[in-house]
Amino acid sequence: MQVVTTVRELQDYADAERAAGRRIALVPTMGALHAGHLTLVDEGRRRADRVVVSIFVNPTQFNDPKDLAAYPRTLEADLAACEKGGVDVVFAPEAPELYPDGAQTIVELTELAKPLCGRTRPGHFRGVATVVTKLLCAAKPHVAVFGEKDWQQLTVVRRMVDDLSFDVDVIGCETVREPDGLALSSRNAYLGKAERAAAPVLQRSLTAGADAIATGERDPARVLDLMTKLIDAEPLASLDYMAVVDAKTLAAVDPLAGELRLLGAARFGKARLIDNVGATAR
Amino acid sequence: MQVVTTVRELQDYADAERAAGRRIALVPTMGALHAGHLTLVDEGRRRADRVVVSIFVNPTQFNDPKDLAAYPRTLEADLAACEKGGVDVVFAPEAPELYPDGAQTIVELTELAKPLCGRTRPGHFRGVATVVTKLLCAAKPHVAVFGEKDWQQLTVVRRMVDDLSFDVDVIGCETVREPDGLALSSRNAYLGKAERAAAPVLQRSLTAGADAIATGERDPARVLDLMTKLIDAEPLASLDYMAVVDAKTLAAVDPLAGELRLLGAARFGKARLIDNVGATAR
Repeated sequence: MQVVTTVRELQDYADAERAAGRRIALVPTMGALHAGHLTLVDEGRRRADRVVVSIFVNPTQFNDPKDLAAYPRTLEADLAACEKGGVDVVFAPEAPELYPDGAQTIVELTELAKPLCGRTRPGHFRGVATVVTKLLCAAKPHVAVFGEKDWQQLTVVRRMVDDLSFDVDVIGCETVREPDGLALSSRNAYLGKAERAAAPVLQRSLTAGADAIATGERDPARVLDLMTKLIDAEPLASLDYMAVVDAKTLAAVDPLAGELRLLGAARFGKARLIDNVGATAR
Repeated sequence: MQVVTTVRELQDYADAERAAGRRIALVPTMGALHAGHLTLVDEGRRRADRVVVSIFVNPTQFNDPKDLAAYPRTLEADLAACEKGGVDVVFAPEAPELYPDGAQTIVELTELAKPLCGRTRPGHFRGVATVVTKLLCAAKPHVAVFGEKDWQQLTVVRRMVDDLSFDVDVIGCETVREPDGLALSSRNAYLGKAERAAAPVLQRSLTAGADAIATGERDPARVLDLMTKLIDAEPLASLDYMAVVDAKTLAAVDPLAGELRLLGAARFGKARLIDNVGATAR
């Protein structure tokens, strides 16, 4: 496994692999790798000959400097996990490599970045779209693999890749969960014992909303009410938002119809957790 | 010469040429090709094995819908000129190919897009940066060639390519001029006979400013005053702006020092013309 820190090295690697007719998968991460990330690596390997994992805690997607400072950084363990997972190249740049002196170019989605997490975290998806653009230019992948846990991020990236004509397939992978349903997340490390015990309420409430739709509920307000009440009943949970929207456009749907996504965010102590599940209303 | 209209065709062409070890030059244009564009094609051929010319009147870089509607469209003559100029591929998409339904991703430069033409044409450089990003993703060139006549555009594109880590060399080509100094421009077609006779005052005033710097003037206000007075003395010219700035950052410099650029824009009847010249203050 190679570890490279400059865009130039990564582009040279990509050019050589492409010239040899090999396909490249990119798995963008912020490190603090867990089993969820490793399923992205496995998916990359299924779809390409080479897997590149980027590890970069992207400053521009943190709207809160304290959140950025506290974000877990575990590079040695991450490299060991990548090696074990059969990763070919880890791209681990320092911030000035992706944001050189005077850098000022932003990539922004005027609609998809606004609702849900965009409301609570202004600028977050601008940071995501900007850094993913840089990573796609640096790694020149055929395939880019993202987790479905950040559904809005996945939606933003898909739209951005289509809009900008990047020649890359964006693949979403199912969220990996603990046995009690909690989605794996690097931020779960912030949870105290009682908060950890309370946190699965987020997935339970989303699933309850999806179950209501599956059994015929078509009023989004009633689904929202159901989900919100379950979160409110948990004293250690502080609601950020719950929503049921079109899975692709993230727009409100009333009455509920088509491919839907139920999404939520809540705080448990210092940890702000997000999750989502799918539902279909025919 | 091939003419392609879809991003997919162009990407397939680029992949095949790259796989064969050939280098690609992209010359982005809005059509209405003149001798200035053909020097860009020549430069592309010197630096690459294949030359791709894009012809696309990009709607998002027109802040004025009347300007967009009136912009000269001369595709047949353009194709003949490209064929004669030894172009390998013309990419001539319809607008929905680059701006599909629901497209919403913008690329923006937070500083370089603001002054000069950015002040008079709000949103112009956002449109330029966005469409150039798309064209780079579609044509996958090794080299992209732009004219120096749009100096601010060239500066914006260079910065954007660096910031987003596009693996492409941006080449600027010297402005081609009529014998009386007027820069070639597709918009010169709008000039009436008297306006055409008056228009070289723009280059004359910029050159007078550069001459003043060459002979020791270091006060930007005096250079500006000199240039502005020359424009004001021409009854058919209506001044938009004149400026002397750092050639790379487009920032004000006082006292004048280093690599400078003198830029101006003025209206002659229906035509808004721009031009610029360089100067060095040591």
